[in-house]
Amino acid sequence: MNTNFIKACKGEEVSHTPIWIMRQAGRYLPDYHKVRGKVTFLELCKTPELAAEVTLQPVDILGVDAAILFSDILVVLDAMGMPLEFREKQGPVLPAPIRSKADVDKLIVPDPIEKLGYVMDTIYLLRRELADKVPLIGFCGAPFTLATYMVEGGSSKNFFQTKKMMYSEPELYGAMLDKVTECTISYLQAQVEAGAQALQVFDSWAGALAPCDFAEFALPYVKKIMTALKPAGVPLIYFANNGSTLMNLSKTCGADVQGLDWRVNLTDAIKVFGPDISIQGNLDPCALLLPEDKLEKRIAGILEEGKAARGHIFNLGHGILPETPPEKAKFVVDTVHRLSAR
Amino acid sequence: MNTNFIKACKGEEVSHTPIWIMRQAGRYLPDYHKVRGKVTFLELCKTPELAAEVTLQPVDILGVDAAILFSDILVVLDAMGMPLEFREKQGPVLPAPIRSKADVDKLIVPDPIEKLGYVMDTIYLLRRELADKVPLIGFCGAPFTLATYMVEGGSSKNFFQTKKMMYSEPELYGAMLDKVTECTISYLQAQVEAGAQALQVFDSWAGALAPCDFAEFALPYVKKIMTALKPAGVPLIYFANNGSTLMNLSKTCGADVQGLDWRVNLTDAIKVFGPDISIQGNLDPCALLLPEDKLEKRIAGILEEGKAARGHIFNLGHGILPETPPEKAKFVVDTVHRLSAR
Repeated sequence: MNTNFIKACKGEEVSHTPIWIMRQAGRYLPDYHKVRGKVTFLELCKTPELAAEVTLQPVDILGVDAAILFSDILVVLDAMGMPLEFREKQGPVLPAPIRSKADVDKLIVPDPIEKLGYVMDTIYLLRRELADKVPLIGFCGAPFTLATYMVEGGSSKNFFQTKKMMYSEPELYGAMLDKVTECTISYLQAQVEAGAQALQVFDSWAGALAPCDFAEFALPYVKKIMTALKPAGVPLIYFANNGSTLMNLSKTCGADVQGLDWRVNLTDAIKVFGPDISIQGNLDPCALLLPEDKLEKRIAGILEEGKAARGHIFNLGHGILPETPPEKAKFVVDTVHRLSAR
Repeated sequence: MNTNFIKACKGEEVSHTPIWIMRQAGRYLPDYHKVRGKVTFLELCKTPELAAEVTLQPVDILGVDAAILFSDILVVLDAMGMPLEFREKQGPVLPAPIRSKADVDKLIVPDPIEKLGYVMDTIYLLRRELADKVPLIGFCGAPFTLATYMVEGGSSKNFFQTKKMMYSEPELYGAMLDKVTECTISYLQAQVEAGAQALQVFDSWAGALAPCDFAEFALPYVKKIMTALKPAGVPLIYFANNGSTLMNLSKTCGADVQGLDWRVNLTDAIKVFGPDISIQGNLDPCALLLPEDKLEKRIAGILEEGKAARGHIFNLGHGILPETPPEKAKFVVDTVHRLSAR
């Protein structure tokens, strides 16, 4: 088994720097489109055979050091009773956003096996098909990030409604976040029981918060999740996207690994996170447009800086873009392996 | 004359911390809608009497310590020969984006008086009507930010096309940026000659760049502008939005004042910028939704931290949101004045 990913998470010796790519199972792969063409996005998430198939594609095509479950951070909201649609070009839409106490009261905290069993079934399938070739990462959205979708009813530019609730009805916001957090914890526990060998918490919109608001309205819920999942014994990764000014806070969340977006200088980040946390990142997804010689130089720079960390998992600083040629993604994987071989 | 704004820019003693608000002449004001309802957005920019009228509104209504010319960073592209439209709900659209050497060659570097005379006429009017009550700020977009609109043809999420040009055709990108920079310099010089008493360079999308790319593809052009405008003798402000990881670089650009978005901890920023640069910012525009007691506490915190800087100009960390009640904006101005009175 290729255990480099798990070892890097724990800060142990590796034979090469492991790499996986956010959204590695996705729209830049023609193979993905073949599967996706047959079903809607949500059907793909909810059909274990198909979700497992697209999860495995980048493992075979790119040779990454970890698989990540194909799913979406928002399926948990569907399980909590919020109608959820994915519209072409518009992205996720939640037609009944949460705006009142009655809305929060209506949210259910489901048994994850009952409402999200398809995820666990996908994990079972994947562990069997991966046959310990590479480890499988499970994931969820962080409570604040999920809250933005719940309150805004979809993507947002300024998170006006979410911050309005936070600021003017903190108790209501807190009650909503408590429910989401509880649900997320049992969901992640079920993922580990089904076979997930590491977990990543995606805080995609954390970077919209001033540090004082992150400390009050986002971080406490992440900490609860990390504390609850610690006994599960799998590496825990926290990715606060665009979170460079939050690093002093997010380092206290309890994660083994901190994911970094491409805006951050790795050397600076490693100084903040210190010797007890591994780091993951952080090539600009657009840098895959560079000619190969320049791309290799940039990869080499990130690998060099990453050496100062307890452990380094190479990744992009954000999801791979649909416009990326798959051969460029393969070039990144091969180059990371070649340059970092011990 | 209320000279607190100019004094704070230079790091001189003030009688209270000056405040102005990005987009203070804008859609949150019913008075603005009355004027805007009569004309298109671009007509408003191009009609000196109306542009001057809306510029003055927040000075009268809110009591801010500086006026900022009502205009748009993209009018300079219109002057360079790029068709420019503002569509409702969609924002700016440039139907003929720059993608080739032929496109760059076609761009003109206009005489600003000839092509942007309406801006200078607005400034003349404003200086007469302001009668030295408060100083008038002129502005422009930073070359990289303008480049994103030129290449993408409008707003963008990932700046894929811009970075593609940067990475794969750096000479083409450089030629385009040189033209934009040259044009911007003469435009700002004309603004000062017409009466602008300070200048702000808005780098709205700088935060999309990794530090190494900012250093190579954005900062050199900002430096050229600052160097060229230094002899004009007015305070120069640089605002790199979402630029927390760029501060070590942006502090070298030559500006007297660095603007900060709300993600940044002011104390950290002041440590980076040091004793020779004033700072401007940085209340989260959404924080205007806080109840007044909490809003006052947050303002007090920013004022307290700002004391460590050479000079502090209070502002929001981004443009005021259209949903903001004007009385909350007035509350912020009054509170800054009250709490900071020496």
